[in-house]
Amino acid sequence: MREQKWQSRPPRRPASRDRDRSARREPSDQVVLYGWHTVTAALTNPNRRTRRLLATENALRRLADEGINVSISPEVMRPDALAARLTPDAVHQGLIAEADPLPSPAIEDLPATGIVLVLDQITDPHNVGAILRTAAAFAVAAIVTTARHSPEATGVLAKSASGALELVPIVIVQNLARALAGLKARGFLTVGLDSEAPDDLAAIALPEPLALVLGAEGKGLRQLTGATCDRLARLALPGAIKSLNVSNAAALALYIASRATGV
Amino acid sequence: MREQKWQSRPPRRPASRDRDRSARREPSDQVVLYGWHTVTAALTNPNRRTRRLLATENALRRLADEGINVSISPEVMRPDALAARLTPDAVHQGLIAEADPLPSPAIEDLPATGIVLVLDQITDPHNVGAILRTAAAFAVAAIVTTARHSPEATGVLAKSASGALELVPIVIVQNLARALAGLKARGFLTVGLDSEAPDDLAAIALPEPLALVLGAEGKGLRQLTGATCDRLARLALPGAIKSLNVSNAAALALYIASRATGV
Repeated sequence: MREQKWQSRPPRRPASRDRDRSARREPSDQVVLYGWHTVTAALTNPNRRTRRLLATENALRRLADEGINVSISPEVMRPDALAARLTPDAVHQGLIAEADPLPSPAIEDLPATGIVLVLDQITDPHNVGAILRTAAAFAVAAIVTTARHSPEATGVLAKSASGALELVPIVIVQNLARALAGLKARGFLTVGLDSEAPDDLAAIALPEPLALVLGAEGKGLRQLTGATCDRLARLALPGAIKSLNVSNAAALALYIASRATGV
Repeated sequence: MREQKWQSRPPRRPASRDRDRSARREPSDQVVLYGWHTVTAALTNPNRRTRRLLATENALRRLADEGINVSISPEVMRPDALAARLTPDAVHQGLIAEADPLPSPAIEDLPATGIVLVLDQITDPHNVGAILRTAAAFAVAAIVTTARHSPEATGVLAKSASGALELVPIVIVQNLARALAGLKARGFLTVGLDSEAPDDLAAIALPEPLALVLGAEGKGLRQLTGATCDRLARLALPGAIKSLNVSNAAALALYIASRATGV
């Protein structure tokens, strides 16, 4: 049985592009993307359907200068009119796009290679966006999460991801323990990050396919999530503070795993 | 000549505690700290002078339960009265402290050992706070920066640092190139992170004392900063995105340097 999806995106394998679930989508599913890297990455992603593009004259000129093809007719606006459509702290850099969310692979659609990142109740959109960006830098195959972000949070997440939302497939699942069981059935070693674990992540064998499981700051992995992982490991931190911002922890875990697996 | 300081903190060497610069301080220098980890770290830091403590009854009970000694008389308030003193997105967790900023070491006060992190125009308080927290986790000797944060930004920074503001000395300088020259004169190898550099940070010799220099996202190191560094190096990122959130980049650089130097 497939997991229910709120935001769906395509797997990278061409075969699955055939499945078009957009017909089922409600208008409220639309996401609002803003910022130069975020919107240009969406515009150049063949799997992203952009419904509306709002742009300043300067941004349109820059799009033309950089040879970025805009398939829909942009609506030219002044910078302050763009800003008025977003929260006060959002930086639009001349571009806002309204788009369909990307379709999503199911666990069974993931290729059984490389590294997958599993997020256990990590919800802060800045953190999730930074994790996505770092995941794209480490060529992570997918992110698995239970988090369903509101349209506004999706905009913040996409901005923090700086274009990476278009690059890393996100698998949204209802039940994380079941998703981990699905990954294990496909051959993934599931390793949970736990600051209390006796083993150092850098000292254990990390074959691919590998699923790294991270919990929320402060709370860590939920009991069932930890119990479902094949192994638990910690990041070796020599200083007085033993817990990191979760996106920093993800970056270290990915670096260690990426070197160990040779991905 | 000493650099001018806006926020000063003591070096860890006891000798320099003698210098008391607090007499010169204006009332506007006071910082407002909030959040459980941030305020309890301040209360247990013998170098931090807390002037006022606002707390909920629950927080006071928890302080007593955890045996945290409060040297000043707390003002008991309801949670909503505490919240009203902060910006809407600030999470106080029952504690607000008004305190003097910590005194600061000068470049010449730093011990010529370990790793120092130099921040070139990195100003976002969430990022600086996350960097401080990771720096404390890697036992970084000090952070050198030109950034002068407003009292409100200092609160955000301290909250993101989750107690690390009390642990990592911050050297505030007026001129970063001069500060780098000072570090070099003290024997530090100065290595700038630059995504365009040919050398991989993990592949070059990194002896201690070592100064790792990071630029702002998007802009990178300023030309003079890069030219002043002994070496430039990049983080090897195998994926489609070649630049990370700056706190994620700092975490990776510290991990690599910490393993290389054995700090």
